[in-house]
This record gives sequence, C-alpha cells and structure tokens, in this order.
Amino acid sequence: MKTDIQIAQECKLKRIEEIAKKLNLKDEDYEVYGKYKAKIELSLLDKLKNKPDGKLILVTAITPTPAGEGKSTVTIGLTQGLNKIGKKTIAALREPSLGPVFGIKGGACGGGYSQIVPMEDINLHFNGDFHAIGSAHNLIAACIDNHIKQGNKLNVDINKIVFKRAVDMNDRALRNIIIGLGGSQNGIPRESSFQITVSSEIMAILCLSTSLMDLKKRIGNIIFAYDKNDNPLKVKDLKIEGSACALLKDAIKPNLVQTLENTPVIVHGGPFANIAHGCNSILATKMALKLSDYTITEAGFAADLGAEKFLDIKCRLSNLKLNCIVLVATIRALKHHGSAKNISKEDLKALQKGFENLDKHIENMQKYNIPIIVAINKFSSDTEKEINLIKEHCNSLNVEIALCEAWEYGGNGAKDLSKKVVNIIENKKTNYKPLYKLNLPVKEKIEIICKEIYGAGKITFTEKASKTIKKIENLGYGNLPICMSKTQKSISDNPSLLGAPKNYTLNIDEIKLASGAGFIIAMAGGIIDMPGLPKIPVACNIDIDKNGKISGLF
Amino acid sequence: MKTDIQIAQECKLKRIEEIAKKLNLKDEDYEVYGKYKAKIELSLLDKLKNKPDGKLILVTAITPTPAGEGKSTVTIGLTQGLNKIGKKTIAALREPSLGPVFGIKGGACGGGYSQIVPMEDINLHFNGDFHAIGSAHNLIAACIDNHIKQGNKLNVDINKIVFKRAVDMNDRALRNIIIGLGGSQNGIPRESSFQITVSSEIMAILCLSTSLMDLKKRIGNIIFAYDKNDNPLKVKDLKIEGSACALLKDAIKPNLVQTLENTPVIVHGGPFANIAHGCNSILATKMALKLSDYTITEAGFAADLGAEKFLDIKCRLSNLKLNCIVLVATIRALKHHGSAKNISKEDLKALQKGFENLDKHIENMQKYNIPIIVAINKFSSDTEKEINLIKEHCNSLNVEIALCEAWEYGGNGAKDLSKKVVNIIENKKTNYKPLYKLNLPVKEKIEIICKEIYGAGKITFTEKASKTIKKIENLGYGNLPICMSKTQKSISDNPSLLGAPKNYTLNIDEIKLASGAGFIIAMAGGIIDMPGLPKIPVACNIDIDKNGKISGLF
Repeated sequence: MKTDIQIAQECKLKRIEEIAKKLNLKDEDYEVYGKYKAKIELSLLDKLKNKPDGKLILVTAITPTPAGEGKSTVTIGLTQGLNKIGKKTIAALREPSLGPVFGIKGGACGGGYSQIVPMEDINLHFNGDFHAIGSAHNLIAACIDNHIKQGNKLNVDINKIVFKRAVDMNDRALRNIIIGLGGSQNGIPRESSFQITVSSEIMAILCLSTSLMDLKKRIGNIIFAYDKNDNPLKVKDLKIEGSACALLKDAIKPNLVQTLENTPVIVHGGPFANIAHGCNSILATKMALKLSDYTITEAGFAADLGAEKFLDIKCRLSNLKLNCIVLVATIRALKHHGSAKNISKEDLKALQKGFENLDKHIENMQKYNIPIIVAINKFSSDTEKEINLIKEHCNSLNVEIALCEAWEYGGNGAKDLSKKVVNIIENKKTNYKPLYKLNLPVKEKIEIICKEIYGAGKITFTEKASKTIKKIENLGYGNLPICMSKTQKSISDNPSLLGAPKNYTLNIDEIKLASGAGFIIAMAGGIIDMPGLPKIPVACNIDIDKNGKISGLF
Repeated sequence: MKTDIQIAQECKLKRIEEIAKKLNLKDEDYEVYGKYKAKIELSLLDKLKNKPDGKLILVTAITPTPAGEGKSTVTIGLTQGLNKIGKKTIAALREPSLGPVFGIKGGACGGGYSQIVPMEDINLHFNGDFHAIGSAHNLIAACIDNHIKQGNKLNVDINKIVFKRAVDMNDRALRNIIIGLGGSQNGIPRESSFQITVSSEIMAILCLSTSLMDLKKRIGNIIFAYDKNDNPLKVKDLKIEGSACALLKDAIKPNLVQTLENTPVIVHGGPFANIAHGCNSILATKMALKLSDYTITEAGFAADLGAEKFLDIKCRLSNLKLNCIVLVATIRALKHHGSAKNISKEDLKALQKGFENLDKHIENMQKYNIPIIVAINKFSSDTEKEINLIKEHCNSLNVEIALCEAWEYGGNGAKDLSKKVVNIIENKKTNYKPLYKLNLPVKEKIEIICKEIYGAGKITFTEKASKTIKKIENLGYGNLPICMSKTQKSISDNPSLLGAPKNYTLNIDEIKLASGAGFIIAMAGGIIDMPGLPKIPVACNIDIDKNGKISGLF
C-alpha cells in the first residue's frame, strides 16, 4: 500500500497561477511562493465585498481515539467531491504545527487520495506563517525582560508576568524553566516557560483579526503582566505592537494551495483545539466564502472542542453563517467507544454501545440549530451489518448519514456525501444561536459549556481560578467568550472516560485572560501548552534524498 | 533627508522574473517567492559546472567605530558601479538577523542609494531561511532532552551537553537558564542556554555545505554531547539528521533579489563575524561566480575578523580564488581611531594617527598575496585636506585608493572605485596562501592568527581551553581551521583599544569544536553568543500602516 507522501508525490500538481486563475484572481490579488503556493492579498476582500458569500460547511468529529477518524481526509474528500459534482468549492483549513509533525500525530494534510499538496511544504514551514508568529511572540517576550533589566519604568511585578516564550516544537524540557541567571548583566532571574507556538495568543489573534490594523490593535491589547499595584500592563505600553505587526505582514495573508484533484484550498492559521480555539483564520474563511459557492472548513479535534469554539467564538465574532455541520465518525472508533476488544472485527454490540458518543455530539450540535449530517469514514474492516446498524441508528434519530470513501477514491468516494450536503443546504433552514450569552457571569458561561456540551453534573473551580475570574470581571473583561482548554480524548475532562460521560464533576484548574484575542481561557484537567516527544519521534523516520525528495513524513 | 527605508520604498523594483532573465535563468532554475524574491535551484551549479568562474572581490573594512564605515553600502554601491561601467556583476551577501534588526544595529541592506530591495522583506523573515535553521537546531535540542528522559540509551552525560537551543532574537534572559524543572514528566533538570540563531552550528554548516547531502552529512556529524565515558555523541546517533536536513531543503537554496538599480544580488546565510565565521554561503558565492563576470562578496565586521575567516576558512574549504580585496574606511572613523574629539571637524592630526588602524589591516591583507584597494566611503564632513592626506598616505604605501560616493549617488558614485577594481584585476596577480597550515597544532594555529593579524605579543589559554584543545586533538579533529570569536570593536581582544594595539597579551577563554561545520572556535574576551537589547530597542520605532507600509526599519 502506498503511503500518503508517496501518493502526494505522484500527484501532478498544477502551477498555483492556474489554481488562482480558476478563482478569477488577478495578478495583483496574490503573490506566488514557489511553484505551488501563493499568498492572497487582503485587498481582495475589499474588492469582493459586495459579492454574496457562498455556503459554509463545518466538518467536525466524534471524540478521537487511537483508531483515528480521518476528519481532515473527509474534509478534503468532501471538497474534492463537491467539485466533482459541479459545485465550486474551496476548503479553508488550518496549517500544521511542527510539534505533531515531528512528534506522534504527524502532519495535517489529509490522507490517501484526499490530501492537500505540496504536503511536504505545508507540513514543514509553509510560507513561514508560524515562524512569523513565533518571532512576534518572542520579540514581545525579549522586550519584557529587557524592560525590567533597563530600569522597569512600568513597575512590572516579575511574579505576575503572564506572557511566556514560544517555540514550534514539542519540547517538554522548556515547560518549567528559570531564566535570567548568571548575574545582573544577564537580566533578572525568574521562573518562566515556553509554550508551543500554536497555543500563543498571537496565533489566536492572527486567526481572529479582520485586518492588519485590527491585528496591530489586538497585539497592543495583550496583557503581558501586572504591575506591583496589580494593574494590567499591555504590549502597547512597551511600544512594540508596530514591530510585532510588521513581523506578521505576510503571515496575515491566507495561503492558497490545491487538493490532489487540483481544486483550490486556502490554508491559514492553526491554533490547537485542545489548548486554543482550534479554527483557521477568519480572513481565510471569509475569503473562501467570497471565492466559492461552497466553503468547507474544519475545527480541531471533536465537536465538543473544535465545533463549540467555532460556533461560540469564531462565528459569533465574525458573523459567519454556518449552513451545515458534517460530523465525522468511523465504525472502528465507535466500537472503541463501546469498549470493543478488537475494533478490526465485527462487533455490533460494541458499536451499538459506542453510539452514545456519536449521539452526544449530535445532540450538542443540534443546540445550535444548524442542520447536521453524519459522515462515516469507511474502512475495509467495516462490515455490511455494522454499516446498516449505524444507518438505522441515524435514521431513528432523523439525522442524515452518508458513507465516505474519500481516502481510497478521492472526490469520487465522497460524491454521495457531497450530494447529501448540497441537498441539506438547499432544503433545510438554519437558525444559528450561540450556546451562551456573552453578558452572563464568567462562571455561568463556563458552567453552560461544561454541562450542556460536556455532560458534566457539577463544576468546581480552584481557588486560583475563582480569583482570576473575579479579577477579569473587575477589569471589565467579563463579557468575553470562553475558550475551553480540555483533553480531546474524552467529552469530559478525564481522558480515560469513553462514550458519553454524565453527571461527573468537572474541575476548572486555571483561568487565563487573552485580552488581545478577546476570550477567556478556562483550563480543565491539567492541559499543557507544550507537548512532549514520544520515545521514538516521527522525526527519527523522516529523511531526504539528494534530489530533495522527502520520505517518512505523514 | 530621506531615510533608507523611504529611498527603498520609492525604488521602482523589477519583477524578479526579469532579474532572473538577465542572468539567463530558465523557469526550472528558480522559484519565485513573492514578486521580488526568488530561490535559485542548486541544480543550476551542475548545469553551469563547465562555465568558467567570474572574478571574485571581497569587501572588508577597518575596525568599526560608532561612526560607522558603511561597508555594505560600499559593497552594494560597487556592485551597482561595476554594472554601470558595463561589467556583469553580482553581489553575494549575507542575510540579516532579527537580533540587530530589532536591537541597535538595524538591518543589513546597505544605505542611501546603495541598497538591496525589498529591504523590509530581506530584513525581516527573508524566505524563512533563519527560521528553518532555528527549527532544525531546536529539533535537535528537543530530541537530546527527550532522549535522556526516555531512558538515555546513549548514556549522555547531562553535564557535557554542548548543544544549546537557538532563537533569532536578542534575548539576554535566555543566556543562562535551567530547564527541565517541574518533576520527571517534564524532563531532567539541567543548566542550559539559548544562542542567537546566526551563531548556531547549523548556520555555519548551511554556509559551508556544497550540496544537500553534504549538509545532511555535516548535521549528522555535529557533536552534541559526550557520554559518561567522555566519548563524543553525534546528531546521527539520534537519527534525526534526515529530519533536520528536510527542514533545510529550501533554506539551502540561495536567494535572488536586486539592488536599487535593478542589478542582481544573491543573499544567502548569515553567520555573525564576531561569534561565527561571518561569510555568506559557499553555494551563493559559487553561483554568483558562475552567473557573472564580477562577484562582490562581503565578510562581516573588520578585516581582522571577517576577511581572515573568509580567507582561511571559506576560501580554503571551497577553493575560491580571490582576485581583489576592497578595504573600506571612512575619514570619520579613522579620526575616531586617532582619538579625535569631534570627528565631524577637520582634524589632520587625529586622521594621521588613525592611519595605524588602516595600515594594520592593509598589512594583514597583504599577507594573503591578494591585491588590495582602499575605498573611502565619503561623508559630507570630509575636507579636501583630509582626503588629500589619506590619498598621499596610501600612495606612500603603494596601495590603491578610491573615493566612494555610493551612499549619495548609487552606482554613479562608485564608478571610480569600480574602474580601479577592474584595473587591478586585469593587471595585478594574485598568489593566495592561507595564513596558517592546517596540520599545525591547534594552539600554534591560534597563536599565528593572534600574533600576525591581531598584533598580540603573547597568547595565554585558560586551563579549560587548554584541556579542550587536547581533547579535540585526541579525538582527531586537530587539523580543522580556526574560527576566532572576538570583539569587533578592536583589532585586539579588548574593545577599548583603538588603532593598532601591539605587544599585548591575548587570552583564549574557551574552545569549542564545531565538528559538523568543520572548524574549531577559539573564544577571546568573553564574547557572548546571545546579544541583549538596548534601553530603547529599534523595535520601539518600527511601525506598519494599513497598507502594509513599514516605517522605522533601517
């Protein structure tokens, strides 16, 4: 069997100018980065502001398991499928992080015959966007410590610095560090930390900004520390938001690439969904909506994390109108949720039991009043009986379902799903409402998410979390939406609970304010913002030959 | 008066395809990165291997002072000037580091009417080369700590890890840190450090590699630590040289840009000259030699640092044949070396005294048997008497001299210099010999550089340095060239000594082995590989407007 990278390398890519031409982009609308990548100018949004938006489809998934659900594969397959049935369709996706690329999970370009290409470039530096974000982040960090060393005019309390440093690498040794050692010429000793770039507030800001000036303003509004009187100190107090924004002048432009079937894809931004808000940039989504009749987008991990934040943060902030939710599941993963011993063998009982995970996500999504379809990412081990069982189950719930064989057959394997999605959009109404109102107290907003979406019975807060909430509300930031940070392995905050846990107690450890991005981060279950590498990282299997051909990347 | 960035922004740039066309590059020979930048494929070197090389000119300078010498301005001006007088000329230059760009020194694109453009892009991320180097570096670093945490099969002695982490930022708080705190799930606590990316061994390797496979081999050969029996451990023992090289697959390709006068420039790699070897990549220089009749290249800081390493490391390793050395000086800087009170006022006595710095650099360069010309970068404060004095002085030494007004007039201001350089190359012979033989003992090689070039009387070594030298020789690396790490502010190791210090004692603090790059680093005078930011960093003055126009960058 061919590996993903082999399939990708056999693809006959079209020059990116050809892809741009399909979208009617003019020479001034984009800049080419190598033969197969481009950046689209933000001015395009102005030019097209009177053009009506296309339809927006969100691809999300059930709770991930080691078996894998293939959400990106379905997303890309659906994009290819819709184009196959004659619908002008663009996917708006997140960029991969080097952390998982070299760690365990691998890249984020889909799989089989549903991939975006050039996958090597997208999985590695991809036009430098994350590096630019890391640079802007670390410029701010360096200026904070420098400010303190140079006299500390702002009266920064070194025990109340909330801005870390960032690196796009899984490097657990940098989670807890002491910096500034070696005497006064080397700064002031203090505890600090590195976070992975994708969890940086700069990443969230880039993804939520609507223009270059909005980006600059938001960066200026980041609270990096509190002074000795506990007043917030912002990046604009350091006068470096201009520099940070200058570093992001190209990174803010969405990237254009293509699928294996040469259909256009916009890939831009990439906050993790378990520790950040998990959606590609608003600018990318808006651009795709202007350039297509159908825009497919994705939210990281399962619907409890990615879709909730997509709906309650991204859609609310940017007035996006979502037309359809595609919920990806696999029979193997559902059997895993139903505690099957061997997910490769037919096990109707485990499958039936595993439905509770699917059902909870369906129930959650229905709270937003958006029509939904379940997409079964088909594996060769799936039996007819299993497929029939899940079809019957969805029918009984009055929820649409389609098989997707995009991994094996590309767009042709997603034609049925594509037709059903079109049918839903043409015939079903949406009546989007967010899960919670912004003007509720912070604790109440968190409780609504945890109870309604995660099924928790009781929510507790550490004393530290409660104190921070009070502080945030006193500072006037109480009206911001919530960005939950929680394990992706369970709907609950306990990674070992499969299915649809209920009536458990969920504990909020820590609260963080992202005043530039404009949300409040609620952390449950000790989620870390810096992953580690496994015993044998993917990095040990990647190689490159004398012709520059890369192997081992997936 | 217009600022450099204003002049650069008024320039009518040509599309990079047009610049490539001038060089007869075919579509397959390069990839475009935005409208005004490209990367040249390494395969071009193969295609042109039978074409004779052009002539090679090195621009170097007297010891820098706060007054500035304008070496890059002269380099670019000379490139423009040679093109003006009908010589097909390319400059091969180093890329700027974000450290000085946001710190004190600013960028590295020349000045006035002798600049390379787009200066904003070149000074900021420039096709991501340094970010790729940083990523490859930090992947190795993360894998080292991960290896130890995962069982330490290689028996790494955590007190003998010599590989640091890297960031392209002036961040002194990261000079001395403790990492891996917070319990065993966060790694093993140990002392560590970040260095600025430009000082990374990966940077040196990229600049000294002759192919992608040479790059991979050299990365694999980096000694990152010693085991508990004091045996060297190499990156290839971690099996990640393939991944690190994959990260550098585009960074190894030289970048094509243009001068303000639309002549081609290749910019690639950028090790600092005071802490690293200070030359652009060998691949860039070789490419420029194949594509031009005259190639101008530059070596960082003064001739004692940049030129010595250019000649003894780069030329020796890559068999480059240097045809002419241009030694840049300013009358203001020479007066500073002569202890003038006010360098803006005529001061013939101070100028005369300052000649000793110029003379020492001339004497040094003459040891390599390459013809030399002094280029006076003219300032408006220079008087006729001062100019005559320096002309007479050079005449008395039988050394060519030319005034250069490239800052004010671009290539037209460098015509005289250009003609004289052509005349030298056409009429004078070169007979290059390196300063020292590689098979001498390490201490002897260091002593030759310090005595012959720096004018030191006596060389001392710390006990630690002596021990390391012995270790290096025992490991079989004694035959490598020396990469001196020393202050740029004086020919000596004492930054406060102006002119041409003599008969002083120079102390070597520390010795490092760069087994991948292939040199031995000898550190004198407490040189640090991570600069700090000043009280008001340049970063505080940089801004960007809604059209993406940057100001304050220089």
